[in-house]
Amino acid sequence: MFEFSPSSRVRRSPFYEATLAEGVKSFTPYNHMMMPTGYGDPEAEYWRLIEGVSQWDVSVERQVELVGPDAGRLAQALSPRDLSRCAVDQGKYVALCNHAGTLINDPILLKLAEDRYWLSIADSNILFFARAIAAERRLDVEVLEPDVSPMAVQGPKAEDVIASIFGDWVRGLKYFWFRAVEIEGIPLMLARSGWSKQGGFELYLMDGSKGTALWNLVREAGQPWDIGPGNPNTCERIESGLLSWGGDTDDRTNPFEVRLGRYVDLDLADDVVGLAALRRIRDEGPARHQLGVILEDRPQAPPLVAWRDILRDGRKVGDMTNGVRSRRLEAYIGFALVSRAVAAGETVEVAWDGGTLPGRLVELPFL
Amino acid sequence: MFEFSPSSRVRRSPFYEATLAEGVKSFTPYNHMMMPTGYGDPEAEYWRLIEGVSQWDVSVERQVELVGPDAGRLAQALSPRDLSRCAVDQGKYVALCNHAGTLINDPILLKLAEDRYWLSIADSNILFFARAIAAERRLDVEVLEPDVSPMAVQGPKAEDVIASIFGDWVRGLKYFWFRAVEIEGIPLMLARSGWSKQGGFELYLMDGSKGTALWNLVREAGQPWDIGPGNPNTCERIESGLLSWGGDTDDRTNPFEVRLGRYVDLDLADDVVGLAALRRIRDEGPARHQLGVILEDRPQAPPLVAWRDILRDGRKVGDMTNGVRSRRLEAYIGFALVSRAVAAGETVEVAWDGGTLPGRLVELPFL
Repeated sequence: MFEFSPSSRVRRSPFYEATLAEGVKSFTPYNHMMMPTGYGDPEAEYWRLIEGVSQWDVSVERQVELVGPDAGRLAQALSPRDLSRCAVDQGKYVALCNHAGTLINDPILLKLAEDRYWLSIADSNILFFARAIAAERRLDVEVLEPDVSPMAVQGPKAEDVIASIFGDWVRGLKYFWFRAVEIEGIPLMLARSGWSKQGGFELYLMDGSKGTALWNLVREAGQPWDIGPGNPNTCERIESGLLSWGGDTDDRTNPFEVRLGRYVDLDLADDVVGLAALRRIRDEGPARHQLGVILEDRPQAPPLVAWRDILRDGRKVGDMTNGVRSRRLEAYIGFALVSRAVAAGETVEVAWDGGTLPGRLVELPFL
Repeated sequence: MFEFSPSSRVRRSPFYEATLAEGVKSFTPYNHMMMPTGYGDPEAEYWRLIEGVSQWDVSVERQVELVGPDAGRLAQALSPRDLSRCAVDQGKYVALCNHAGTLINDPILLKLAEDRYWLSIADSNILFFARAIAAERRLDVEVLEPDVSPMAVQGPKAEDVIASIFGDWVRGLKYFWFRAVEIEGIPLMLARSGWSKQGGFELYLMDGSKGTALWNLVREAGQPWDIGPGNPNTCERIESGLLSWGGDTDDRTNPFEVRLGRYVDLDLADDVVGLAALRRIRDEGPARHQLGVILEDRPQAPPLVAWRDILRDGRKVGDMTNGVRSRRLEAYIGFALVSRAVAAGETVEVAWDGGTLPGRLVELPFL
């Protein structure tokens, strides 16, 4: 256990004071900010997400705003997914690639207006990248980081909590759609989204000075449903097959390797960044694919924090990119980024404590 | 004090095991890696750097390698500093800017060959940015992150230690120059450089599997000079006026604001990224400048971890971007990024615990 040294290079969240009051114990860095990772009771935090409702500081999901006459052109240039039918107030999951077709982020794109978009990003710098593309192409668009900080409310009871605050109309909000709302003077975008498969909403706070106010408002409203603090949950996200960019990907991962091929539209125009490379990769066939791997139960084993070799007949065929003891499956599970020469149903060996453990490959998600 | 949650998104250093053996206590995130920030005795670690010799894991200084026929063209396009007289085996400090003239990193550029360069970067993603420029301009160059991890040996006795390992020729190595060497089968680039003003060297390890071997080799060789572990030292770097990108800069900081104007050559070709904007900023005059601010001594006050307002006559004129109790000056000092309407010699107010403290502005460095 090591201390996290604070630094002005690593920003605090607008919800920082509120999470201190909740008893936050640990943080992970994400987009040059500190994201809470635990409040001292992992067991309760997991079941709260699975069976109840959990409140998360995910302000580290920074927004990259594209605004101006060419915002739509830039949004499409950055997205190898057809945005032509994306409506205002609709979000789309995007496999953002570089010119080589390598996945460099997997944001939710939110279309706020015909000339205004947000990319709600994973843990890599898209601000510099999007500005470089815009400037090199002399597009008439501003690219900036607005004062926007998401808070997530996740779990099967999240809808009841959010409806109690904003009204029953939220029950009709479709997945990844959003609406601008204001509550007690706090401006936000309310979206049905979140990095779990337990359902829920994200509240994109649009005034960083009101983080504690928004946190406490949701906290109070959630009392009848026993809301409590949490954060993106390693166990749940692995069980649910959710990708962590940078954790489950490396500097040669393309969307087809990590189950994102269905978000790639290869008939888009040639000026979409990475499209030519993605067509070539599709034609040649990606080198790897992403499966699940199930080891025997190891109730005391901590989550993996670095990749482990996966072998077949003693030869490396890929990597186990994450791993956790699944509370619901009562097995040790993780993602396998492996050669397409190995398939679900096969048994492999996973490097472990100087030796190996047998693992069974399965299709994702686990649950 | 919060725990640092490890994650496969945040890589470990090749020197990680060696720093564990040294008793590392805390880390800061930097370029998606964990950098040691302390070994339990800040007082001893400071004086070891000032008066002796200190050994640092700075593998977080990642290299962005440019290699191929257009590597020189790309290096110059990314650098608003004339590289035409940069020799092979020479390094140059570069104020890397985006198209708006905003500082996005301040790497050391190392020229390894006419067609091969490294950018030894501060804490922001230049890999994606450099690839975007290269691809948009259809340059014939590869941009990659090589297996290179610097270790620093810093302090007045560093030269003796390094000479004892590599020979007395190192005493003639000029600042920022480097040479390829191999020691006990470990390949590295040996450079006279490092993020302190106490003198020293950086050993760019070129084989990540040999981190512990290199660490222990230097550790053994340094025993006669009482070498011990350390890291970039907040107190020393503030006393010495060294810039921390992302800590002392924001999303509108240009090189002229932070004392880097002397590294900008405005007569370079127009295709250097940011040059047109830098000419305009120079003509109009930058909005801010960077000074030091000295408060009364506060022996118990911890280092600042977030910016604080600086006021004059009750009105905000800038920010105190870092702060530390100087062991040598016996005062609380920091950098002031302030309007050019305020000058060294003036007294300002610094926001502190709900009130303000008086501070005297001075030119940097402090020592």
